Amino acid sequence: MNKKFIAAVVQQAIPGNNKTENLAATARHVRDAAAQGARLVVLQELHATQYFCQVEDTDCFDLAEPLDGPTYQLVRDLAAELDIVVVMSGFEKRAPGLYHNTAQVLDGQKGRVGIFRKMHIPDDPGFYEKFYFTPGDVEPTKLNGFMPIETSVGKLGVLVCWDQWYPEAARLMALAGADMLIYPTAIGWAPNDDEDEQERQRTAWLTIQRAHAIANGLPVIVANRTGFEASPMDDQDGIEFWGSSFITGPQGEYLLKPSIEEEGAFCAQIDLERSESVRRIWPYFRDRRVDAYANLSRRWIDKTI
Amino acid sequence: MNKKFIAAVVQQAIPGNNKTENLAATARHVRDAAAQGARLVVLQELHATQYFCQVEDTDCFDLAEPLDGPTYQLVRDLAAELDIVVVMSGFEKRAPGLYHNTAQVLDGQKGRVGIFRKMHIPDDPGFYEKFYFTPGDVEPTKLNGFMPIETSVGKLGVLVCWDQWYPEAARLMALAGADMLIYPTAIGWAPNDDEDEQERQRTAWLTIQRAHAIANGLPVIVANRTGFEASPMDDQDGIEFWGSSFITGPQGEYLLKPSIEEEGAFCAQIDLERSESVRRIWPYFRDRRVDAYANLSRRWIDKTI
Repeated sequence: MNKKFIAAVVQQAIPGNNKTENLAATARHVRDAAAQGARLVVLQELHATQYFCQVEDTDCFDLAEPLDGPTYQLVRDLAAELDIVVVMSGFEKRAPGLYHNTAQVLDGQKGRVGIFRKMHIPDDPGFYEKFYFTPGDVEPTKLNGFMPIETSVGKLGVLVCWDQWYPEAARLMALAGADMLIYPTAIGWAPNDDEDEQERQRTAWLTIQRAHAIANGLPVIVANRTGFEASPMDDQDGIEFWGSSFITGPQGEYLLKPSIEEEGAFCAQIDLERSESVRRIWPYFRDRRVDAYANLSRRWIDKTI
Repeated sequence: MNKKFIAAVVQQAIPGNNKTENLAATARHVRDAAAQGARLVVLQELHATQYFCQVEDTDCFDLAEPLDGPTYQLVRDLAAELDIVVVMSGFEKRAPGLYHNTAQVLDGQKGRVGIFRKMHIPDDPGFYEKFYFTPGDVEPTKLNGFMPIETSVGKLGVLVCWDQWYPEAARLMALAGADMLIYPTAIGWAPNDDEDEQERQRTAWLTIQRAHAIANGLPVIVANRTGFEASPMDDQDGIEFWGSSFITGPQGEYLLKPSIEEEGAFCAQIDLERSESVRRIWPYFRDRRVDAYANLSRRWIDKTI
């Protein structure tokens, strides 16, 4: 395996729910990434449609597809044709009434090599995800849901959006051997927040993911959507997605700097050898107090333990 | 308890191992902080002396004191006189041949209200701490070593230096009810690293601690020493401590911005009410997958689990 390769993130504004049009634009960006030499392309969360979770509406379940659905087929064929690894993200219909927010990894001619079902599900005004998405399974034989996916560019620690706020998720992927962390994302501002609050939120989002790179000594790749999407509800302001897709090395240093509004495929070179050298000077894994971490499995540590 | 109060960090260069002189300077800074209205003052790691861990030398154990030693007595009296909370840090002699890197919390007239013994011990060229410091105990009745300390300004999640690189330590303190995280620190550059590497290191250090604030929705207070300290070994370059003491709010936003070289007592107002409002919009504790975190207690997840 080549330890140096070019990775790309695709950052798109999604004008509506016409999947054919949206995926045609995505395919153009993926081809552009491949033309720039990318061996790995990461798409944003739920890229085939607008972010439908702004409202709780049973009709939106019609946007879901089974794992093998048409969106998967299109991206699989594209990955095979270009002989690259693509991380896609979609609304999965697993069974009647059972839906997930699922990333799939397509590796060239091999097709699907693994999936990850979003483990931490948010629910906030405008982000009603608990209505739509069943949390990913805990299966002890599958490393409790946090299992890196083997590909031709390395083991991908794929997580999805809200998972990005949890140091536990990043750490579990690293402990299971992930060579890098990958976060397809859909996050933005409520337009009525003031500019200071907006900047605090975006900076926090950048900071915590850069910190996962630092704590675990590995690169982090984040693709987030951009552009404004109106709310289906008349009295709501919609979401201004903040883009800012970025790539860091294992010290949290930017390899690709974030841009809020630009659309396209953006590339950076990743060197997995650097993880080894960074972990030698910052040997956090050597000194973890695994004898003292059992309480991390508690919801809260009440006074009487 | 007043939810708004002024907190201070004391950032000092330490010219030698004359404790009387060093502590006199510290006392001046603590008085200055109190004059600025500080109710809480955080001192840097091992503030009574230079950072002696640049070499492994049995004579350096003479710098240690029992918990009740003269450094403690001086800081305790100062905290009582000024009626403030002070977090001090020292080299503790617990028993013959048994030494710790220990923070103590003094609360006005109450004197000592708690201690924290550094849990994660580094060991790198120039930072030979494993030679000197026994790691803090795991005592199940004491929340596995990560126990916040009750004071008149709130529950202090006191950790020490290398602990700051571990999201686990921050999380465990937060789960046990810490109102804020506090890190006395001694970290700096090897002078022979180039400027880019130096900036990556300092930025990583700022980033990961700001991320603890974000992940846990609470303020973070960090005091780090500044100034150059030569190595006792002729063939070593010494350490350029990078100062940069800072205070953030619960979104990781700077309340006190870092300065690399300045010495003194630097203040910011903390508002603990903000933790509640930030945790309502970013409810990470609600969504933790405690059913899926058991592997955090593993050293590594080998292929056959």
